[in-house]
Amino acid sequence: MNPKIAAYLRDHAPATPCLVLDVDRVEQNYRRLMAAMPLARVYYAVKANPAAPILDRLTALGSSFDAASWEEIEACLAAGARPADISFGNTVKKVSAIKAAHAAGVTMYAFDSEPELKKLAQHAPGARVYCRILVENKGAEWPLSRKFGCEMGMAKALMVKAAEWGLDPYGISFHVGSQQTQTGAYQAAIARVAMLFTDLRQAGVNLRMVNLGGGYPVRYRAEVPEIDAFGDAIMGAMAEHFGNALPEMVIEPGRFMVGDAGVVSSEVVLVSRKGEDDPVRWVYLDIGRFGGLAETEGEAIRYAFRTPHDGGAEGPVTIAGPTCDSTDTLYEKSNYRLPLALDCGDRVELIATGAYVTTYASQAFNGFKPLAEHYI
Amino acid sequence: MNPKIAAYLRDHAPATPCLVLDVDRVEQNYRRLMAAMPLARVYYAVKANPAAPILDRLTALGSSFDAASWEEIEACLAAGARPADISFGNTVKKVSAIKAAHAAGVTMYAFDSEPELKKLAQHAPGARVYCRILVENKGAEWPLSRKFGCEMGMAKALMVKAAEWGLDPYGISFHVGSQQTQTGAYQAAIARVAMLFTDLRQAGVNLRMVNLGGGYPVRYRAEVPEIDAFGDAIMGAMAEHFGNALPEMVIEPGRFMVGDAGVVSSEVVLVSRKGEDDPVRWVYLDIGRFGGLAETEGEAIRYAFRTPHDGGAEGPVTIAGPTCDSTDTLYEKSNYRLPLALDCGDRVELIATGAYVTTYASQAFNGFKPLAEHYI
Repeated sequence: MNPKIAAYLRDHAPATPCLVLDVDRVEQNYRRLMAAMPLARVYYAVKANPAAPILDRLTALGSSFDAASWEEIEACLAAGARPADISFGNTVKKVSAIKAAHAAGVTMYAFDSEPELKKLAQHAPGARVYCRILVENKGAEWPLSRKFGCEMGMAKALMVKAAEWGLDPYGISFHVGSQQTQTGAYQAAIARVAMLFTDLRQAGVNLRMVNLGGGYPVRYRAEVPEIDAFGDAIMGAMAEHFGNALPEMVIEPGRFMVGDAGVVSSEVVLVSRKGEDDPVRWVYLDIGRFGGLAETEGEAIRYAFRTPHDGGAEGPVTIAGPTCDSTDTLYEKSNYRLPLALDCGDRVELIATGAYVTTYASQAFNGFKPLAEHYI
Repeated sequence: MNPKIAAYLRDHAPATPCLVLDVDRVEQNYRRLMAAMPLARVYYAVKANPAAPILDRLTALGSSFDAASWEEIEACLAAGARPADISFGNTVKKVSAIKAAHAAGVTMYAFDSEPELKKLAQHAPGARVYCRILVENKGAEWPLSRKFGCEMGMAKALMVKAAEWGLDPYGISFHVGSQQTQTGAYQAAIARVAMLFTDLRQAGVNLRMVNLGGGYPVRYRAEVPEIDAFGDAIMGAMAEHFGNALPEMVIEPGRFMVGDAGVVSSEVVLVSRKGEDDPVRWVYLDIGRFGGLAETEGEAIRYAFRTPHDGGAEGPVTIAGPTCDSTDTLYEKSNYRLPLALDCGDRVELIATGAYVTTYASQAFNGFKPLAEHYI
């Protein structure tokens, strides 16, 4: 475990459940990403963790920001970010949110449909707009389906319309899915984007930016490729398809920036069996799917655990949260094993839980308050 | 739609997303339930909706309460409930919560394992305890798997231990799954409980209570049996298996009490297509799975919608929430159709959403605040 977090947990023993996050580690991740992709501009995906200490640090480092809502834009501005460094990256925006962002000076907006483009033309005239296209999500542990993005033909037609409607047809974005473990996913998407650049140039529209989205993986239970492997694959594909006419490059890391900077500390509420001879123990923690661990849905993201008894004899477990809802079960099919000595009252740490935890927490399901947050 | 709620929405046009709930309808549901099962004592499952106006009304009506946490017990006490009318129904409780409940005078506790029973013996000495057994959840639209309950043999052994450990071996509980549409599920479970009563009597332990749990369904898109049908089936099975020695009966309705009393009002943020010839429109609302509609996971609970264009021509839709998470998609496979005239800015109502919505709402995912709540 991160030694700074380990020391904090040892010295302060904060009430559980809580997240302890090392802001210095966020800075290291930002620098690692810059080193792996020096030509790309980092737009931190605020939704991964919008805590002020993270936004403050990243603003000081010169990061830009990818915001999903007007509320996230406000948080970035409060941290000192310039409006020009904020992208309103949700393709589904209320008119009121577009108006507020435009009034605040935000000039960069995502879209993936004609009605959304029309809203932007009307309420953020002159804005730089980029169209999100559908791409393959193969290899992603948290894939993104068809909810965002449009087909290639539609993207082309909409970028032509954007120019006609007085907007700045700025670029194309895609997202290969979150916790993407295959570098090839980016290469295939870049090839599609390059085709669109060519088609649109022939239609008289000169795009200037490729938004590569996020998805860069964090180490949970299994090894993942290093960030340098993604940098090499992406830069190789960009050079192959764009040659010397390299467009501006935007990346939107969220999980990669904060995931391994955080640890959730929880308490074991109960260890039990369903029958006297049942080999599987049920381990109930004081945090579950509705307390913030939403990405364990379908056992998609499989966190690593640390217990006070690590190294001792282990046995199979089902791991569940504390609420009366049966879907609040974290892992039943992923072959988790925990020490046989584990007991009620023990503290258990969930490693690399800095991303996509705190804001997901339900406000009060079963009466349980959201986890506490400590930024160190 | 409930006319009182319709009038409120028309006259106040409250900001979306919000829940509007008719507290008089909760009272009607309580009375319907009492009429259908006059011999049962109602313990309202607070987790379904713990809002103070609901707890206040039910306290005034003489209801008892099923609480999932110390925080829910506090809410019941604040509403004026007597500690003797509160059951601590979660089988997974922190020691600190048991101590607090015991100190407050709560005397009735659920368990389903030896370690939990040990905690109760130590921290709530003399309490009335009931053991939850595993039963079939067939027919439930929101089934409860194996997370709660234990096997019959273990339940018998634990009730004997409860007496040995100075606790009051009070009864047996089960849960046939939420939104249970088959009355037979209760009958099968009652037969199992009766066997356990007999076995334990032979072991010298005389149980006095059967807790039939909740699960009584609400009308969403499809018809469900009337509550009287459940009452008849349950009373028939109780008479068949217990004859004249009818034990106390406890029911724990949540969804049935508040579900059809509430309507979520939301705004359409975008209606779009993924390609120009795509027959399916995507309808994005300002509330989704992480805004409270958690029970749409796996499209388990299928709400009915009202729009300003009802009656006009319809077409197929996928319905999604406003966040950047692709899993925040409500209905993709359940053959929803909505009016072709539906457009950005329209208000859409989700009917019978009074249960299991407000407390599930994430505290701030994507920066979105939880829905507002109006109790009328």
